[in-house]
Amino acid sequence: MAKETFNGWVGKDLSSADGNLVWEAFTPKAWEETDVDIEVTHCGMCGTDLHTLKGGWHEPEFPYVVGHEIVGRAVRVGSQVTGIKVGDRVGVGAQSDSCLDCNLCKTDNESYCPNNFVQTYDMRHKNGDRSMGGYADHARVPGHFAINLTPYPNVSSEILAPMLCGGVTMFSPLKRYGAGPGKKVGIIGFGGLGHFGVMFAKALGAEAVVISRSRSKEDDAFKLGATKFIATKDEPDWATKYEKTLDLILNTVDSTDMPLQEYLGLLAPMGTLVQLGAPDGNLPGFNVFSLLMTNRNLTGTCIGSRKEIREMLQLVNDQGLKTWANPFPMSQVNEAIKAFNRSEARYRIVLVNEKHLQQDN
Amino acid sequence: MAKETFNGWVGKDLSSADGNLVWEAFTPKAWEETDVDIEVTHCGMCGTDLHTLKGGWHEPEFPYVVGHEIVGRAVRVGSQVTGIKVGDRVGVGAQSDSCLDCNLCKTDNESYCPNNFVQTYDMRHKNGDRSMGGYADHARVPGHFAINLTPYPNVSSEILAPMLCGGVTMFSPLKRYGAGPGKKVGIIGFGGLGHFGVMFAKALGAEAVVISRSRSKEDDAFKLGATKFIATKDEPDWATKYEKTLDLILNTVDSTDMPLQEYLGLLAPMGTLVQLGAPDGNLPGFNVFSLLMTNRNLTGTCIGSRKEIREMLQLVNDQGLKTWANPFPMSQVNEAIKAFNRSEARYRIVLVNEKHLQQDN
Repeated sequence: MAKETFNGWVGKDLSSADGNLVWEAFTPKAWEETDVDIEVTHCGMCGTDLHTLKGGWHEPEFPYVVGHEIVGRAVRVGSQVTGIKVGDRVGVGAQSDSCLDCNLCKTDNESYCPNNFVQTYDMRHKNGDRSMGGYADHARVPGHFAINLTPYPNVSSEILAPMLCGGVTMFSPLKRYGAGPGKKVGIIGFGGLGHFGVMFAKALGAEAVVISRSRSKEDDAFKLGATKFIATKDEPDWATKYEKTLDLILNTVDSTDMPLQEYLGLLAPMGTLVQLGAPDGNLPGFNVFSLLMTNRNLTGTCIGSRKEIREMLQLVNDQGLKTWANPFPMSQVNEAIKAFNRSEARYRIVLVNEKHLQQDN
Repeated sequence: MAKETFNGWVGKDLSSADGNLVWEAFTPKAWEETDVDIEVTHCGMCGTDLHTLKGGWHEPEFPYVVGHEIVGRAVRVGSQVTGIKVGDRVGVGAQSDSCLDCNLCKTDNESYCPNNFVQTYDMRHKNGDRSMGGYADHARVPGHFAINLTPYPNVSSEILAPMLCGGVTMFSPLKRYGAGPGKKVGIIGFGGLGHFGVMFAKALGAEAVVISRSRSKEDDAFKLGATKFIATKDEPDWATKYEKTLDLILNTVDSTDMPLQEYLGLLAPMGTLVQLGAPDGNLPGFNVFSLLMTNRNLTGTCIGSRKEIREMLQLVNDQGLKTWANPFPMSQVNEAIKAFNRSEARYRIVLVNEKHLQQDN
């Protein structure tokens, strides 16, 4: 039997990260009766996509088809898949395989599964095949990680797609560390992650305080629900002025050159700083008294569970939450990458596969 | 009215940390009806005592009377003190004042009270007076922080005194971070803190794994209940060999020169490393992937609450737990300091005020 192929935007070498993806056929994972094939209508562009194409974390293994914020329609559903039927709107996020058998998987912590086979397209499925992503006409994913989107009719696919990775990356730590009424949440950095943090902190009933270097995004932050905006460049005494005022901090800064000790100092006793930005080098050292006299916590989280994705989408659906998406036709993916690289996204680029839209609507 | 004085071992200058305390009269805090005067029978020697006399954390403010692991008999009880009467055996630990009015104080987290007036003798009471410690014939402490020891008749004062700071410093994070049946707890460093960690981890039903540089204390660790002893000098591949095997780590190392990233790597996903040693400089930086792919936590705790002290003493009383104390007559405090400085304690030195013992027994 001839090898089955899908068509998509293939990264063939390092130049792909500069906007040099090539449209061609590629081989998806071998079909298993636990899989779902998705006819892609939307795929968000995540910084991780380009980081992978650049070989930012390790030597790249071309070819890649990146994209892990996928929305589309189920066009083939394995006989062992439950809860999804052909024709359903489905989505899949950054995680598309893990053991589902360990204590972590069984307690809705599958993102931390020690037997995690695929986290984004950069790893392999259980069967050994490479995982391929959503910058494509079709994506094949294990049905356990495909989320039926039928219960969220109010959320457009354009708004929804980037939430499957970027959104839940912020929603998960907000839920895990108790953001809610009476809590003050600091969001460091207002970009592709930070803007979700502000919107979800507010939706959960907490106050959202944005900490940024300049005031350039202040208006946007207030529009999305921030109650305060600290521009560290304008307030040189920010570290002492706002000391011990926050209950939770989500830090999206991904540079190693950051005032981590001063950030920790903003936390009230027993508060938690969740590091979400992932610099390539080491975090700066800090004085341990920042933690031990106050029982503060420094932690990190990684995307979120399917349960958390569903909770997030229910909240978005019920409250009618809206972000601003930056749609690009999927045919113009290389222009979209260039816009991303020029930091023009306000705040997430979404590739729209228009031919599938036309078929659907 | 003449100023009231107590007699005790006074640190008058930096030489005191080398064993040059002077027995003389000193002025306790002004009496308030919320206070208790304790006729000291025992006082543990904590590293913090000598660190203070050395000006390790800040410029010292002589004179000091140090000692915050105090056991004795209540000889004067303020009219506003409840739960203690003259003659009761009482103890007081490292904390002897905080607001008792904030959310943290009201939820048994008074060690993290933001309005914490006294943490050891190195600060001031609410009334502005210096706090003085237990290397003395008498100690005056706020009654809220004096613990009636009557419910723990099985625990000798010699064993009990060092638990009031050193013991609860280990017991508190074990309780807060879920040490119990089925959990593996790593104790880094087996000394004045670490030996309590092993004993309490076992008493709570967890496995205790000691991580030390050499094997010199291996026998003692097993005697106190350790199930495993990792000597990093003998097992150069310890970091990979034991990766992700521990649920909780209590790190008593107080040097900045430690392999923190490798220690974090020993934690299973969602595990917590509690830093207890307090080096003067910065903790070493580490790669954030140590936290975020696994949702590990780095935190620190500071002594423990009165509730935790009572839970610990109940456990010690009920299980008949015993450590080894190294008693010195209080009259020989300067010899005791010299032994401490030569690292001869196995594992806590306790000063015994023999003249008060004779009165009591």
